[in-house]
Amino acid sequence: MPWWRSWPISRNATAEPPGMIATTPEPPYYAVIFTSVRREEDDGYTATAARMLELARRQPGFLGFESARDGVGISVSYWRSLEDIAAWREHAEHREAQRRAARWYRSYRVRICRVEKAYGS
Amino acid sequence: MPWWRSWPISRNATAEPPGMIATTPEPPYYAVIFTSVRREEDDGYTATAARMLELARRQPGFLGFESARDGVGISVSYWRSLEDIAAWREHAEHREAQRRAARWYRSYRVRICRVEKAYGS
Repeated sequence: MPWWRSWPISRNATAEPPGMIATTPEPPYYAVIFTSVRREEDDGYTATAARMLELARRQPGFLGFESARDGVGISVSYWRSLEDIAAWREHAEHREAQRRAARWYRSYRVRICRVEKAYGS
Repeated sequence: MPWWRSWPISRNATAEPPGMIATTPEPPYYAVIFTSVRREEDDGYTATAARMLELARRQPGFLGFESARDGVGISVSYWRSLEDIAAWREHAEHREAQRRAARWYRSYRVRICRVEKAYGS
């Protein structure tokens, strides 16, 4: 059984595993694009990243998550509102992880976006 | 010399290679998040993807590009305006590539976003 199958999934979260396209509602909604270049040492990164995703999925307004890394890492989380994003940013355990960011990333950029249109197949 | 060093870079484009964090101006600007799951066969995909990025970099309003794939692929292109995004979408060679999308992707999603806030290190 892949590890993500055992995750607690809240009523707010879509059930897609990592490596899938998130199923999101009709726009408008919000996206946080987190682009990063990691340092070589793990130094607790993998465990913290898994924990943060587990926590994010339980937050009010969480809509979905997509992530890929090869060289650069791109993680996109989708949210109902800017207020939901702000509340997640202030979550105590998430704040603690943010304080350790310099340990894990050579550089990163966070972009907060309003999704205005979406289509696909 | 890595292949991307020989690319023609227009006045509009940032010079970052694939695998880097894009250098973008102060918000607001726009992002196109393209998330996809590929088919196994290449079938011209790699050459077309490189050509599309080369073309996109030369379009008016192109600001930058980030891309990673492991399982799911996430490519984000950044643009000055919705009009610039619409013009690129209608570019004849890009339209031809869009018509072949079903050949390369099991599924994909395009999300057009307004970047409202950005920060990082």
